[in-house]
Amino acid sequence: MKNTFGQNVSLTLFGESHGAAVGAVLDGIAPGIAVDEERIARELSRRRPSSAMDTPRREKDAFQIVSGVFNGKTTGTPICIVIPNENTKSSDYSYGVARPSHADYSAFCKYHGFEDYRGGGHFSGRITAALVAVGGILLPALENCGITVGTHILRCKNVSDRPFEDASIDILQLKTADFPTLDNEIGEQIKDLILQAGQSQNSVGGVTQTAVCGLPAGLGEPWFDSVEGLLSHALFSLGGVKGVSFGEGFGFADLTGVEANDAFRSVDGRVVTKTNRNGGINGGITNGMPVLFDCAVKPTPTISRPQETVDFIKDTNAEITAHGRHDPAIIRRICPVIDSVTALVLCDFLAGRYGTDFLAKGTNVCVTD
Amino acid sequence: MKNTFGQNVSLTLFGESHGAAVGAVLDGIAPGIAVDEERIARELSRRRPSSAMDTPRREKDAFQIVSGVFNGKTTGTPICIVIPNENTKSSDYSYGVARPSHADYSAFCKYHGFEDYRGGGHFSGRITAALVAVGGILLPALENCGITVGTHILRCKNVSDRPFEDASIDILQLKTADFPTLDNEIGEQIKDLILQAGQSQNSVGGVTQTAVCGLPAGLGEPWFDSVEGLLSHALFSLGGVKGVSFGEGFGFADLTGVEANDAFRSVDGRVVTKTNRNGGINGGITNGMPVLFDCAVKPTPTISRPQETVDFIKDTNAEITAHGRHDPAIIRRICPVIDSVTALVLCDFLAGRYGTDFLAKGTNVCVTD
Amino acid sequence: MKNTFGQNVSLTLFGESHGAAVGAVLDGIAPGIAVDEERIARELSRRRPSSAMDTPRREKDAFQIVSGVFNGKTTGTPICIVIPNENTKSSDYSYGVARPSHADYSAFCKYHGFEDYRGGGHFSGRITAALVAVGGILLPALENCGITVGTHILRCKNVSDRPFEDASIDILQLKTADFPTLDNEIGEQIKDLILQAGQSQNSVGGVTQTAVCGLPAGLGEPWFDSVEGLLSHALFSLGGVKGVSFGEGFGFADLTGVEANDAFRSVDGRVVTKTNRNGGINGGITNGMPVLFDCAVKPTPTISRPQETVDFIKDTNAEITAHGRHDPAIIRRICPVIDSVTALVLCDFLAGRYGTDFLAKGTNVCVTD
Amino acid sequence: MKNTFGQNVSLTLFGESHGAAVGAVLDGIAPGIAVDEERIARELSRRRPSSAMDTPRREKDAFQIVSGVFNGKTTGTPICIVIPNENTKSSDYSYGVARPSHADYSAFCKYHGFEDYRGGGHFSGRITAALVAVGGILLPALENCGITVGTHILRCKNVSDRPFEDASIDILQLKTADFPTLDNEIGEQIKDLILQAGQSQNSVGGVTQTAVCGLPAGLGEPWFDSVEGLLSHALFSLGGVKGVSFGEGFGFADLTGVEANDAFRSVDGRVVTKTNRNGGINGGITNGMPVLFDCAVKPTPTISRPQETVDFIKDTNAEITAHGRHDPAIIRRICPVIDSVTALVLCDFLAGRYGTDFLAKGTNVCVTD
Repeated sequence: MKNTFGQNVSLTLFGESHGAAVGAVLDGIAPGIAVDEERIARELSRRRPSSAMDTPRREKDAFQIVSGVFNGKTTGTPICIVIPNENTKSSDYSYGVARPSHADYSAFCKYHGFEDYRGGGHFSGRITAALVAVGGILLPALENCGITVGTHILRCKNVSDRPFEDASIDILQLKTADFPTLDNEIGEQIKDLILQAGQSQNSVGGVTQTAVCGLPAGLGEPWFDSVEGLLSHALFSLGGVKGVSFGEGFGFADLTGVEANDAFRSVDGRVVTKTNRNGGINGGITNGMPVLFDCAVKPTPTISRPQETVDFIKDTNAEITAHGRHDPAIIRRICPVIDSVTALVLCDFLAGRYGTDFLAKGTNVCVTD
Repeated sequence: MKNTFGQNVSLTLFGESHGAAVGAVLDGIAPGIAVDEERIARELSRRRPSSAMDTPRREKDAFQIVSGVFNGKTTGTPICIVIPNENTKSSDYSYGVARPSHADYSAFCKYHGFEDYRGGGHFSGRITAALVAVGGILLPALENCGITVGTHILRCKNVSDRPFEDASIDILQLKTADFPTLDNEIGEQIKDLILQAGQSQNSVGGVTQTAVCGLPAGLGEPWFDSVEGLLSHALFSLGGVKGVSFGEGFGFADLTGVEANDAFRSVDGRVVTKTNRNGGINGGITNGMPVLFDCAVKPTPTISRPQETVDFIKDTNAEITAHGRHDPAIIRRICPVIDSVTALVLCDFLAGRYGTDFLAKGTNVCVTD
Repeated sequence: MKNTFGQNVSLTLFGESHGAAVGAVLDGIAPGIAVDEERIARELSRRRPSSAMDTPRREKDAFQIVSGVFNGKTTGTPICIVIPNENTKSSDYSYGVARPSHADYSAFCKYHGFEDYRGGGHFSGRITAALVAVGGILLPALENCGITVGTHILRCKNVSDRPFEDASIDILQLKTADFPTLDNEIGEQIKDLILQAGQSQNSVGGVTQTAVCGLPAGLGEPWFDSVEGLLSHALFSLGGVKGVSFGEGFGFADLTGVEANDAFRSVDGRVVTKTNRNGGINGGITNGMPVLFDCAVKPTPTISRPQETVDFIKDTNAEITAHGRHDPAIIRRICPVIDSVTALVLCDFLAGRYGTDFLAKGTNVCVTD
Repeated sequence: MKNTFGQNVSLTLFGESHGAAVGAVLDGIAPGIAVDEERIARELSRRRPSSAMDTPRREKDAFQIVSGVFNGKTTGTPICIVIPNENTKSSDYSYGVARPSHADYSAFCKYHGFEDYRGGGHFSGRITAALVAVGGILLPALENCGITVGTHILRCKNVSDRPFEDASIDILQLKTADFPTLDNEIGEQIKDLILQAGQSQNSVGGVTQTAVCGLPAGLGEPWFDSVEGLLSHALFSLGGVKGVSFGEGFGFADLTGVEANDAFRSVDGRVVTKTNRNGGINGGITNGMPVLFDCAVKPTPTISRPQETVDFIKDTNAEITAHGRHDPAIIRRICPVIDSVTALVLCDFLAGRYGTDFLAKGTNVCVTD
């Protein structure tokens, strides 16, 4: 299967940037979970372009829950959410001249010219609105079970936010933050970097860091469906994500075993680790510590400067200068998308381990298990 | 499904480190592919511990092809390969005292004490012998279609190998190299680092880099089953892999769009990119350039020094000093495993796109498509 | 995954009888297939209630293609089709008193009372409208490859239609038939049976027979994903289908091997069988003869007579007399649904064997392979 | 995936009739389930040819549990069972002359002549030994949860056994029966029919009936993964099964709604149905009554009489007279195979609904839920 992800809880995405709508079908979700449309709207607002830092395309993201919710609660049958496209300007796009580092050319090779190329079509970041709407259902359901998820910008060029420290408190802070950094001052500096990039017809990337708190130990599989494997699989769907690492990640290459190992300790009858360099995962399976991972996000490829490229229809070299509306950085807007994708993977693991109805029980899993 | 990976070409792993055998079932493979037992043995020898750099456990890896091969060719039905365990010393292992950064504790939480803990059980790197045996079938089949795969140690602590340059030639060189670096001098330095780590009861990690040449443009899916998504999913199964990145990976955070974008050019009627910072993948889909990715490998957690830990049976703090046989670094031995896992994912993509029989045709896909 | 079916070509269903809409997401379909909205409408009209034989609920089935079609052709990305519900009368339904042989009680046990019970909710035959709309895309695509599908009523109580003889011609005849029997006179008798059942507040079931012509030999898998296995899996989704058999089916119990075997013959360089008691499938794999199967359809459980039942909310015995709008038989309306489900399974097999792009090529597979 | 079935509990089959071994990998099974090798042996003995009614090929079925069992209990990791082939006589088989109603020709079309044709290769009933060995683990685990499964011969030509009445008692009786009928006298008559068929170089088929008792209400999915859908998918893998029906099955065509509906009643606070014509399933979901289904089994296609056929290598008409060892009927030997396949599907449903560990808990689900 292609645009579907997950085994016990699964998500199917559809839609194109300039088509009628984007949307998602979420299946396998426990019956009886409260669906709060305001929370969905709030998650969508975190992703929505809203300032000079973002694309001038403005969408209301007026989502419609087509199925699977009855009397304000999940029914247990598929939830289809549709978000109509409204503010589309297809005339900005012509076909054949590939935007460098975009999917135009690779999509042509795959779809032979039948792809809806307008605004990036099915490859557009616009589709992540549907992902985030789904997150607006899953994230509060997880919170109800004592599981929280948060993502901040860890780095943008040479400006670095502090990493998660007391992750559960940091996550709470992020829920109400205007800009997703843990340090406000750093946030201002990153905003400046992004604005400058936009003003100079350029763009910037960065690194995000995500924490998950409250997960029980024992989730994940040793081979293939490790927690790292499923999370990375889902995260690499997101346009611009070019690296995923857990705990120390690539920093492990600088350490010896003596420095890298996380010593276990028994504290108040609970097993913890003194450090958390493994990001809460040993052998692919959660160990009860916060799950920590980073995503590398490349600079938005659309820049308003002339670039060398090809016209793959005429089979010639060409030059392109982007005129479409676009973001000088997606590093801010990708944070709620990462939260949502993470929630999907976690719900899948939890439903697999504890059964279909688990997520509706509102139990704190760490206590339960 | 848990220990099974792949949709059109799929692999199921089984076995424990100190059980009767480890093995794999490979399904969906085209009928008529030549199976060369010498090649399988050669791939296994690349993974096998063989020097003071590796664990003193020595296994013959005498594999048996139980099914799916007839008259030296694949039949198209499942290929089961079994590799008996011979040199096991279970007395080295006792139960309850968790080895830090190993799966002992997380496995206990998942399997409630019923897991076969001896030598890491199903979590052991020993299981990768079965993966490599499968690679011994898939890699030559890909080569027959003009697709080559190679992995080298890019970095170990402060010692760095040169990255892939002319990847198809570099891959050829790696096929016959005694030690998987592109620069022999660097190889010697890394060997020294590993030996020193072993002598000081310590261990080291590193970063590997992999290249795939000859892939057609147009493989992969925009959402979820991107090339990055499926490769990372499979790679994160490997014990010790804690990061996966494509092209510039985490280095993208330092670049602007102007610096990061890969300009397209038409050269001799073929579309190429001037740089390959995206690692041959745009929007999750191959663009015809070499696919390039890095894996971060953490230091082997088993070290012969006293470490703080817990006894999760007695529920007390404890100390552990490893006595089992182990490697001061797996960075060398993981290279052929990464090649094999990569081959599995590629075969799955190719079978999905071009059909069941494709891999047996020995066509150069780039020409065909 | 639950409401999703198929591996290479997959379908996800959503919607409830009295919710906003029903719909489907079709994924994995080759790019470049012409989508003819008139054909979709024609297939929908075959399923639509239209006479005294059917439920008085009248729906326009005004479908909207939300995604995946561009310039009249499939793009290769997910096709979402939404069919709004208009003519709903939820006041006909109350909750707790289980309709016998319906899903009310089993759904309550599964969904704990959170299910949308109105009009059968997600269990309603209304959802098959989305299946049939998808068939309106897949069936002409198959026809373009020389593959045709047709279903007729083989039996209703003691009245039997003739079985398929020259199946490809019979299928053509069914395409334009007002009522799905091969013998018009029998059709009139079956209509009478259904009308009488309706007039006496009763209902009838029956047996359908389906033929598929033009399939290449060699489709299917020996274990699990046999042609019989995948077809039956999908067919048993349909409310009311309680039996599926291939070729002679349950009639095989009366035959000896001498009578049951289909002798092979070479005719004009093509291998055929003299009889087709195995329904075109040997060992789970097509042999090039027409695929033939029957579905047993139970009488519509909704009848306007008092029936003994329970009130599962009050936990007491109760009596029920149906007032909702319903069909005295679904045996007519199920025929296009079976065609559509069959088309889905065939497209999945073909895409798996011949690759993603196959279905758009319009090749006659029997000649190609 | 092809030779793998199941989502939460999954099975992968491998092996050929005359290869080194047949076997299975069972994954997703809860840790801590007792594995009784004697029970496995007993299930295998029910399938093993043993009399003049069966093929003269005699196999010891000396199974080896290669992985996934430790100290007599399941570990939660994949269980690989290998059953070596010993008594093979490949000289009985030559290649190119298709045995009518066997898979020889369709396999040739699929595998292009690379298939291991000896003794039917991967299509051989011999592979079901691995299925039955797996059943030897799953069936007692289900029994421990209060769920029992049994299959008897319902009909062979004109001789019919009585259908299940008090199914849980009937199942108990079948566990110790020498021949799988509920009526011993009928059993003798069916034995005679089979022996006569064998003596006259002919073969017979039949119909089996299976009952499952103790299942909780609420298992199954409305679309696609209905209980009927998954069971039939797995059952149609078995060579010779050409029809699967639930409850009244094809008999529903003769009934009206008034006759066919199962009235609900509340008895001692438990909801039951007065009749069970729907075979314990409403809307694809269990309703708490025994699940009842029939399988149509065609006569063994191998008969020792001359038959018309083709030589698909020489592309000519030919005649064949079987010399290989074979059964005049598989209707007896298929009963334990059906039990095992059923157990697999049930375990998958239960693990999906109640979580990974459920099956090890030994809870009576009906009470629990």
